[in-house]
Amino acid sequence: MKIDVIENVMQYNKDEAELNRKKFNENKVSVVNILSAPGAGKTTLIIETMKKLGSSINIGVIEGDISSTHDSEKIKEYTGNVVQINTGGTCHLNASMIAEAIKKLPLKELDLLFIENVGNLICPVGFDLGEKARMVLSSVSEGDDKPVKYPKAFVKTDLVVLNKTDMLKYSDFNMDFFNSKVKELNPATEIIALSCKTHDGFKRWEEWIFSMIKNSK
Amino acid sequence: MKIDVIENVMQYNKDEAELNRKKFNENKVSVVNILSAPGAGKTTLIIETMKKLGSSINIGVIEGDISSTHDSEKIKEYTGNVVQINTGGTCHLNASMIAEAIKKLPLKELDLLFIENVGNLICPVGFDLGEKARMVLSSVSEGDDKPVKYPKAFVKTDLVVLNKTDMLKYSDFNMDFFNSKVKELNPATEIIALSCKTHDGFKRWEEWIFSMIKNSK
Repeated sequence: MKIDVIENVMQYNKDEAELNRKKFNENKVSVVNILSAPGAGKTTLIIETMKKLGSSINIGVIEGDISSTHDSEKIKEYTGNVVQINTGGTCHLNASMIAEAIKKLPLKELDLLFIENVGNLICPVGFDLGEKARMVLSSVSEGDDKPVKYPKAFVKTDLVVLNKTDMLKYSDFNMDFFNSKVKELNPATEIIALSCKTHDGFKRWEEWIFSMIKNSK
Repeated sequence: MKIDVIENVMQYNKDEAELNRKKFNENKVSVVNILSAPGAGKTTLIIETMKKLGSSINIGVIEGDISSTHDSEKIKEYTGNVVQINTGGTCHLNASMIAEAIKKLPLKELDLLFIENVGNLICPVGFDLGEKARMVLSSVSEGDDKPVKYPKAFVKTDLVVLNKTDMLKYSDFNMDFFNSKVKELNPATEIIALSCKTHDGFKRWEEWIFSMIKNSK
């Protein structure tokens, strides 16, 4: 008898992700799955985006964490449409967790749903959640070698956002090196460099979001 | 029949870790297992420590990465005693990988062996490698909430090092909050705040290393 437990788990996740995707499409909501290392600024990017766009579009958030409601409590100040998933130790979200979480969200009312994955550039890579777009959020303070160290995350993404560009002046981060390594792995991806502190680069980020939403309507 | 695959894997790792520990003790080498998020500065801390102490003690390094030899190439400039482990996707080192790696190191000649784990605050936590001490390296630019978000890493550590204190003046990092959250999880652990750039705080770090080495002789 063939032992194929892992294959089945991955197939099950794929099937569940397709069901989520169908539900998102029916409800015309754009879903973005955000992957990053701890401390890259996922929660801050979501909050700054809500501050800027919250009056023109309806944004929901699914927060993934091992434990604690630390991030969703911050986000609650900006939207009631936030659901916390505590994985209890698992290092990534999966499609079944998302299927449970969206039961608690008014999908029909939302234009955009951010899924903040567990902070980790390895485990979440293999798990489709049914999102429309996946993005990797990197940050200047992590250094310019992240594409070299965590290549799979950068290969399997639709967008790379580089946060904390306000730190460039205090750092030896080499932007050309970072960009060229990302492009080697994923020639099609766009790279948006921005700062959640100064909002430099936010214009392009907002355009990207609006074009995503337009595509889902 | 009881299905106990996971238990067996963990027991196997524990047994292998004890064999490693025995070997380290016989050879009187102090072994430090470094856990951190991507970009906290593990490689930089190792290199700065070698620059400062490399003439008085003999330091070896095991580099853990998913793929690439990016970090070990940097470290090679300071010591020939470096071994790269590429996990090929696995998000942590385990004791068997270490058992293989130390075959390539002259343990008898070493005073100190740094194991740089895969950059990730979740998966490596459950895997004893046979080390004498485990440390978590956090950094100011990741934010002060890392103990809240990744509690298990902070519970199961002998030392917390907070890197990039030179960034404190550009950041809203709350040192009291960070320290109190670490102490809530792990009252016994010491917290050493330092900067690999300015070497502020290095005196205490060097003392910690020397007392570790003294204990192993």
